[in-house]
Amino acid sequence: MSTGLNFLVAALRCEIDAQGELARTSELVAAIGRLVHALQRERGLSNGLLASRGQRFGERREAQIHACLACEQAVRAGFDALAAERTRRTVNGARLFSRIAWVLPGLDALPALRQRVGALQIDTAHATAAFVKLIAGLLAVVFEAADGATDPEISRRLVAMFNFMQGKEFAGQERACGAAAFAAGRSEPARQQQWLQLIASQEACFHTFVEFASPSLVEHWRTSQAPVELVELERLRRLACGAPAGAALDAELSPIWFDCCTRRIDAMQDIEALLAAELRALSQERTAQALAELQAHEQLLARWAQQGPPDTADFFFGDARGADPAAPPPAESAATPYGRQLERSILQLVQEQSQRLQAMNDELETVRAALNERKVVERAKGLLMAHRRLSEDEAHKMLRQTAMNQKRRLVEVAESVLAMAEFLPKDAAS
Amino acid sequence: MSTGLNFLVAALRCEIDAQGELARTSELVAAIGRLVHALQRERGLSNGLLASRGQRFGERREAQIHACLACEQAVRAGFDALAAERTRRTVNGARLFSRIAWVLPGLDALPALRQRVGALQIDTAHATAAFVKLIAGLLAVVFEAADGATDPEISRRLVAMFNFMQGKEFAGQERACGAAAFAAGRSEPARQQQWLQLIASQEACFHTFVEFASPSLVEHWRTSQAPVELVELERLRRLACGAPAGAALDAELSPIWFDCCTRRIDAMQDIEALLAAELRALSQERTAQALAELQAHEQLLARWAQQGPPDTADFFFGDARGADPAAPPPAESAATPYGRQLERSILQLVQEQSQRLQAMNDELETVRAALNERKVVERAKGLLMAHRRLSEDEAHKMLRQTAMNQKRRLVEVAESVLAMAEFLPKDAAS
Repeated sequence: MSTGLNFLVAALRCEIDAQGELARTSELVAAIGRLVHALQRERGLSNGLLASRGQRFGERREAQIHACLACEQAVRAGFDALAAERTRRTVNGARLFSRIAWVLPGLDALPALRQRVGALQIDTAHATAAFVKLIAGLLAVVFEAADGATDPEISRRLVAMFNFMQGKEFAGQERACGAAAFAAGRSEPARQQQWLQLIASQEACFHTFVEFASPSLVEHWRTSQAPVELVELERLRRLACGAPAGAALDAELSPIWFDCCTRRIDAMQDIEALLAAELRALSQERTAQALAELQAHEQLLARWAQQGPPDTADFFFGDARGADPAAPPPAESAATPYGRQLERSILQLVQEQSQRLQAMNDELETVRAALNERKVVERAKGLLMAHRRLSEDEAHKMLRQTAMNQKRRLVEVAESVLAMAEFLPKDAAS
Repeated sequence: MSTGLNFLVAALRCEIDAQGELARTSELVAAIGRLVHALQRERGLSNGLLASRGQRFGERREAQIHACLACEQAVRAGFDALAAERTRRTVNGARLFSRIAWVLPGLDALPALRQRVGALQIDTAHATAAFVKLIAGLLAVVFEAADGATDPEISRRLVAMFNFMQGKEFAGQERACGAAAFAAGRSEPARQQQWLQLIASQEACFHTFVEFASPSLVEHWRTSQAPVELVELERLRRLACGAPAGAALDAELSPIWFDCCTRRIDAMQDIEALLAAELRALSQERTAQALAELQAHEQLLARWAQQGPPDTADFFFGDARGADPAAPPPAESAATPYGRQLERSILQLVQEQSQRLQAMNDELETVRAALNERKVVERAKGLLMAHRRLSEDEAHKMLRQTAMNQKRRLVEVAESVLAMAEFLPKDAAS
């Protein structure tokens, strides 16, 4: 028959296992960050190769593919390690695995994509779209990891990390979009709109990052965004996005724009590495804390084994005895003062742990709210896909276009779509 | 190296394990319901014994203690089964175990309490308080089980179950409160207030039960509350609660009141058994569904082992090839039509599973909102305990008293307390 202290220890073991899971998840997120960065570079070099009809970037691309393969191997090993865990058998785990199941075929398909790029059998737009889709799938794994985290501090860092990675990906897409716009030599309204949207999405992500990152990392981030670079970036943005439709753009600015963006993105990669290091340190600290607490409790349990379990009636029922002053002193009053202290300490420990777990849960809900905007957009997309028989891409474009037309935020439009849901024809739903 | 389908299967296994956990949790909740019912009866008989100075209820109480012991054994076995699970190693699990750790010393202390009751060494108020505390601890386990459930349908039923059990406990407390009030033969404002509070709390619980229970159970519930019984109940409530302070009450009404309440509470026990049966059936159905799905996926996986994994490039990257009509047909077009169908089916399966999991999560958050009121009250109590150095009981009384004085709902007062939190002196916090 188990005692209260057994369950207190079991509760602590749960926390330790959950911390161990989080540590492995954090490592995986860091590995995904490195793979995404490598794929972003490969995307840029592949576009350069395609745009130059195979004349440039060939060797650099080959080297980058090798770098990608090493990162990919690390990510796949991380996936396999997760699958081997005996503990992550929860619905959170199911969501994470489902995201992994979605992205793995994309990784499997990379060699075929690379072969087509190498043989110039694909254009830059489609090559870019393929890399964007793969990176989005990888970021979805990071999102799920952040959403499934059960320690509020670690959850904060994962939310910061996800938003930073997502912001960096928008910055990468902006680099490609701008390079193509300058190279085209002429201003096009559709591309300008896409560009402005990429800037807005990026800023929203970095805003959330700043909200959830540690102060020292925020400081790093601000320092890394050197004014001299930003001035150049903003000047080029203004030149291209502010130009009237059809106006000429200086094609010579394309490589200047590309290099300016690349320096900025490489600086982001340094911040991402710091984020990963911070996450690892925090995770190790938490595990050590929980282990120390477990050890203390197991020592108590060992003392019980020697002394027999203390009678906790007095403490549990509080003043239930005080009612009758004539009542004889109960048997356990023969216990040593040490025994009394022990019996009190157990229920206090339980109460403390229970309060700590509740506080953690409350804080966690606050942090997760930051992820809800993305979920709202995803749900609105799903609704449009089902009711209007749109592809995911089309649904996203429709939301984005509406947001731009109405000068509202994407999430606000998504909320309106969800609010309208009950007026949509029910039979059209999948 | 794992494939996407491996992870799809892993995700399904997670769901199945989570379903298995839920099935065991549901059984435990049902067992706790039976123990709580038995303890409620023992509480009533103990009070009868104490009030009659040992002249009445002695034998019935002995029989009831035996019934309690059988129920207690089932609950303890359920606790142990949970502790033996290898999968519930999550923070949700930690919270559940922590609640169990809290209540076990109470169960351990029951023999001592019974001995004092049998020896008439405790008064009714303190005996009642001890049973109330123990039952509250058991209901907290049920609350945590409902809060930790990850299937929205099962979560709905558990929320219904928790609220029903909590409402029934308030009904039991009302029976005791009313019996004492009539027995005292005189109307007392403090007891009237407590009584009215118990009626209000009870109605709030049954209201939530009706919101979340299945229509057929709601129908059962409404039928079980026979008008003829309710009329008698309401008449007695009015007589006692509506009387001016100090007015005489007919002490002869005490047993009539008690029997009237008892019939109502016994009818509640039938509903609770139906709730438990429904929960079991639903849980079995879910597990069977998930197992059938897993089997289908494992068959797919076996086919892969024969045919080699299909190339999903075409599907994953969508129109990435269509870009260059001059591109040669890729190698995998040699696949049989069956192969093509297979490759499509995998990503569609993943997408469907992913959407289902997301929908489950969204619905779950809606259901859990129903549990938040209780959490708000608990947090406000914790805050008062820390800042005003009150016991849990005192904090609860303070909130309840404020609610009655201001004619506001308990949760509203709790929300005000939490909103004021930042104005409280920080250094007083524990």
